[in-house]
Amino acid sequence: MKQVSYGTTAKPNNRARYAKHIIAVTSGKGGVGKSTVSVNLSIALAQLGHRVGLLDADVYGPDTPRMLQIENERVQWSDHNQMIPSENFGIKIMSVGLTTPTPDTPLVWRSSVAVSALMQFLEETAWGELDFLVIDMPPGTGDIQLTMAEELPITAAIIVTTPQQISLDDVSRAIMMLKETGIRIGGLVENMSYFIAPDTGAEYAIFGEGGGKYTATKYNIPLLGKVPLTMGIRKGSDRGRPSVALGSEDEKNYFRDIAKSLLVEIGID
Amino acid sequence: MKQVSYGTTAKPNNRARYAKHIIAVTSGKGGVGKSTVSVNLSIALAQLGHRVGLLDADVYGPDTPRMLQIENERVQWSDHNQMIPSENFGIKIMSVGLTTPTPDTPLVWRSSVAVSALMQFLEETAWGELDFLVIDMPPGTGDIQLTMAEELPITAAIIVTTPQQISLDDVSRAIMMLKETGIRIGGLVENMSYFIAPDTGAEYAIFGEGGGKYTATKYNIPLLGKVPLTMGIRKGSDRGRPSVALGSEDEKNYFRDIAKSLLVEIGID
Repeated sequence: MKQVSYGTTAKPNNRARYAKHIIAVTSGKGGVGKSTVSVNLSIALAQLGHRVGLLDADVYGPDTPRMLQIENERVQWSDHNQMIPSENFGIKIMSVGLTTPTPDTPLVWRSSVAVSALMQFLEETAWGELDFLVIDMPPGTGDIQLTMAEELPITAAIIVTTPQQISLDDVSRAIMMLKETGIRIGGLVENMSYFIAPDTGAEYAIFGEGGGKYTATKYNIPLLGKVPLTMGIRKGSDRGRPSVALGSEDEKNYFRDIAKSLLVEIGID
Repeated sequence: MKQVSYGTTAKPNNRARYAKHIIAVTSGKGGVGKSTVSVNLSIALAQLGHRVGLLDADVYGPDTPRMLQIENERVQWSDHNQMIPSENFGIKIMSVGLTTPTPDTPLVWRSSVAVSALMQFLEETAWGELDFLVIDMPPGTGDIQLTMAEELPITAAIIVTTPQQISLDDVSRAIMMLKETGIRIGGLVENMSYFIAPDTGAEYAIFGEGGGKYTATKYNIPLLGKVPLTMGIRKGSDRGRPSVALGSEDEKNYFRDIAKSLLVEIGID
């Protein structure tokens, strides 16, 4: 883990000291289920007794408010001029999606503005003391990712991918970036591993097979878990009913097992 | 269509005059099949007799080289110090993926650098005369999108989405951005509309139903077509065998119909 330096002013790697651990959920490519993993992992950690905040840093596609059934909430300010995070399913949430006038207001922001907004969410939100700050990162390897890597003492990154070759290409680039910036990779999550037909229970490897395991082996990082594509998980995301809280036992266990594997990886029991 | 201003020096909306028409393929969210649509639409336009160039502007996830079976090619320079685009399936292609030392080299670029690289691809590539320059845009509404909107006389934008609510939220933001920047929306493509089980032929609305039509109606834009999620199309993308060229007749027609609908929309027969 990175050493936090307790300087007198804001320094690189010195933000968000209210959180004991910072977990960055990343992906090479969008649309692989990064937000679904972020949301369900955060809730799973809370179910295990931890105090959890979820920062939705995907400023151009802030999907977590809908996934957590808080899409109609708007950010409130405290007497101390701090933003008050929303709460649901036992976690605190801050997202740019809670700050726009309507859900379809686009953020036509230069990246410098986006980075400033995220810094404000990190520093001017009344998170309280947290065991885990989970950050749902934007996909790719651009300004936001670079700045977060420089300014935050990230405990570990989790990389989400599908088994599809095209997604694995992009995830390889994300892994190389994390290695270059010195961020520890907590592990890989393979999402949409296979589709389970709701009528017959048949499994279809829509996006191919074995890609997650192959990539984990190639880059020597742990495979934290595999999550199938089920109608239940997809509807849960669309309807604000996170699977780890309100899904079937199987669906709950996919995400709980990932949370437990992560805790083992970073040495917390 | 936008008026091209023929000033004496580079001006906003004045680049890429070698192309009669510029089609920007966009999405709110990554992972919805934007590159698959870009690649197959470009080839479909070429099959209809047009001269087509494809610029892969998704600098952080350049997937088109693999989809077009040119992932092992590297960009060559002409005697006139211009980049020579790769060619396959009857189209010319330029992608940042053709410029990196290895396919998994990450582009850890500040967005200003990414924008400069794209401008170089636009201005210093030996495209020749084109009927269509198709641009596979990065997802979202950030710097690259803004700059392209400002600097290029875009004929029309095509927006790719899945029927999933979360994707539609993001696509709404992309539509609002295009409307604000005055770019004509050529239409919506609903991708992964349903999954066709290869053994039984049964159709599963994995990502929900009717989302594309609903969004097209809500924002008063044409629905250019719907493309199902089939193992054939997915494998075609991963293996560099574009469906419109090498897929089944059904798969070819999904994309050909979209190309024809687009030509009608922009008044070309």
